[in-house]
Amino acid sequence: MIKETHGGNIYKFDHKVYDFSANLNPLGMPETVKQAVIGNIDKYESYPDPFNRELVREISKFHQVQEELICCGNGAADIIFRSTLALKPAKALIVSPTFSEYEQALAAADCRKIDHYLLKEEKGFQIQNDIFDLLDNSYDMMFLCNPNNPTGIPVEKEFVLRLAGLCAEKGIYLMIDECFCEFLDEEENYSIMASVDQLEKVIILKAFTKIYAMAGLRLGYCICSDEETADLINGCLQPWSVSTPASKAGIAAMQLSGFVEETKAYVKENRDYLLRGLAELGYQTYGPKANYVFFKSEADLIEPLSAFDIMIRSCANYMTLNEHYYRIAVRTREENTYFLESLAQVTKRNEEQTNG
Amino acid sequence: MIKETHGGNIYKFDHKVYDFSANLNPLGMPETVKQAVIGNIDKYESYPDPFNRELVREISKFHQVQEELICCGNGAADIIFRSTLALKPAKALIVSPTFSEYEQALAAADCRKIDHYLLKEEKGFQIQNDIFDLLDNSYDMMFLCNPNNPTGIPVEKEFVLRLAGLCAEKGIYLMIDECFCEFLDEEENYSIMASVDQLEKVIILKAFTKIYAMAGLRLGYCICSDEETADLINGCLQPWSVSTPASKAGIAAMQLSGFVEETKAYVKENRDYLLRGLAELGYQTYGPKANYVFFKSEADLIEPLSAFDIMIRSCANYMTLNEHYYRIAVRTREENTYFLESLAQVTKRNEEQTNG
Repeated sequence: MIKETHGGNIYKFDHKVYDFSANLNPLGMPETVKQAVIGNIDKYESYPDPFNRELVREISKFHQVQEELICCGNGAADIIFRSTLALKPAKALIVSPTFSEYEQALAAADCRKIDHYLLKEEKGFQIQNDIFDLLDNSYDMMFLCNPNNPTGIPVEKEFVLRLAGLCAEKGIYLMIDECFCEFLDEEENYSIMASVDQLEKVIILKAFTKIYAMAGLRLGYCICSDEETADLINGCLQPWSVSTPASKAGIAAMQLSGFVEETKAYVKENRDYLLRGLAELGYQTYGPKANYVFFKSEADLIEPLSAFDIMIRSCANYMTLNEHYYRIAVRTREENTYFLESLAQVTKRNEEQTNG
Repeated sequence: MIKETHGGNIYKFDHKVYDFSANLNPLGMPETVKQAVIGNIDKYESYPDPFNRELVREISKFHQVQEELICCGNGAADIIFRSTLALKPAKALIVSPTFSEYEQALAAADCRKIDHYLLKEEKGFQIQNDIFDLLDNSYDMMFLCNPNNPTGIPVEKEFVLRLAGLCAEKGIYLMIDECFCEFLDEEENYSIMASVDQLEKVIILKAFTKIYAMAGLRLGYCICSDEETADLINGCLQPWSVSTPASKAGIAAMQLSGFVEETKAYVKENRDYLLRGLAELGYQTYGPKANYVFFKSEADLIEPLSAFDIMIRSCANYMTLNEHYYRIAVRTREENTYFLESLAQVTKRNEEQTNG
């Protein structure tokens, strides 16, 4: 039974497509990461290290956090499911619209009550202070995606730390999904990584998938505020969730120098380029700071753009959104130009149809 | 928090070891499988196909079963957890001693009552007819590993089909773990694969890990008797559990010709060689037919063999077994000879100590 619900599903096509539906680094997988996968081919016979010792050591050095706070998994999605299954929240809050896996993972863990704090378009899809009134100790877990998916809007560090303080006080596990944080220009203004080990019951979700463009290899991790939480998550589900090629790729990625900075600059320049282009064509955007742009269109774009072999992400299956909202990844300059030129043609045709 | 509980954990050593503790094909990973992993390196940027379309097609052809009955996962262990989480058994029966992941997966799915049908040494660790008296409709799921791990003893097809019939009648899901079935000389006498689509509520667990020696790549699957069960398992946990390198390796493996037959012959010859060697040294074995040998030793072997850089699997953490039981994999002739020579020295020393 095949039902497409996510971006990045290029497999329904039998030819090369321009994939703007998955939010991967436009610079592509670094060469040393590819070489690590290839060069270690003779190590893939044996079982992976169930404790991911070498990878954990590199992540620990990279983020300057203790090894005991780290859990690795088969992509960030695996960590989301392990977390809900390990922590068994009975009541949870999700800041929505957002990535659908949080809710699915809560459901898989038989969470009996899932509430949503709704980001409103009239507030620019920004989180408001009223969230602090909502959190009481009836909640066991909360999810915040920062920057959010699909909007690309980040929440400032001070706000997140205030949330973390309140959650700790109320006994609520707080998962902050920082998978797209590396793409932000001023990451340090948004990420709470530097203070994670001073917090309580906090889980920062991270992925190699997006920033190192290695979604097919599957590698995610989280940094917990405390060893107790990390032990619960590490002890949940199978011991060999991280494959050896993913582990070797991750180790190589953590040793790269300058790649994240280069990415930030490239993404910023090309995000601005896409934002200008979308504005010129009359599309509304919402001030994204990540490597993807969320925008609105009255007319359908999926069908007409697929005629140009372009895949974009419809946001129709995000809570409170509908078929008028779309998300596109920031790709290479050449791809972005092709996208804007194609969209210009589609827009012109749509306008002619509306007016004619 | 690091606690070693399985075989195959070579990572605690800082040098090459002779690993008899993991039951992988002694012929190693086929060259075309390695080439598939390397040759598809440029495909690992994108997300994997959440429906594993190409891989499912190959598995379907290989086993002559409908595509709709197949679920793929991040190793067989992933399928075990997905199955219990999807089917949510409240009461389960495990034929024990056996692979510990069944019980852990049941616990993760909050199964409230886990019973064990105990294989007895005085019955040669063979399953008996009394199991049919035990199964009533209070059970929701049953696990049988065939051939069993760690004993290597298989159950005949007729017996398994009789079990499947009774389980269907009582509304019990039956998971038959056939991960080591390809190593059996007369696989067709033990595997129920040929009749799977005529059964009800049956899940046959399979792995690429062992037979294609690709444990580090993580790839397992199951064939369900019915589409309803397959849909439940496929719908559970994350959509991208199979990495693209694992998928490409699996596709290449399914296209191999003669590899399984060559393996069977090699394993048979070397299993007999190990059995003769163990018998000559006075160790009791139990008629294994798989690619591993389960045996008994009064004296400890782990420590003295590790001085020879040999890792074997202590069965002390298997239910009803203790530190006197061991499992070794059938390796290459050269490794098996080294093992027997080392064991001969250890045995001699142990005897001298006992007599002296």
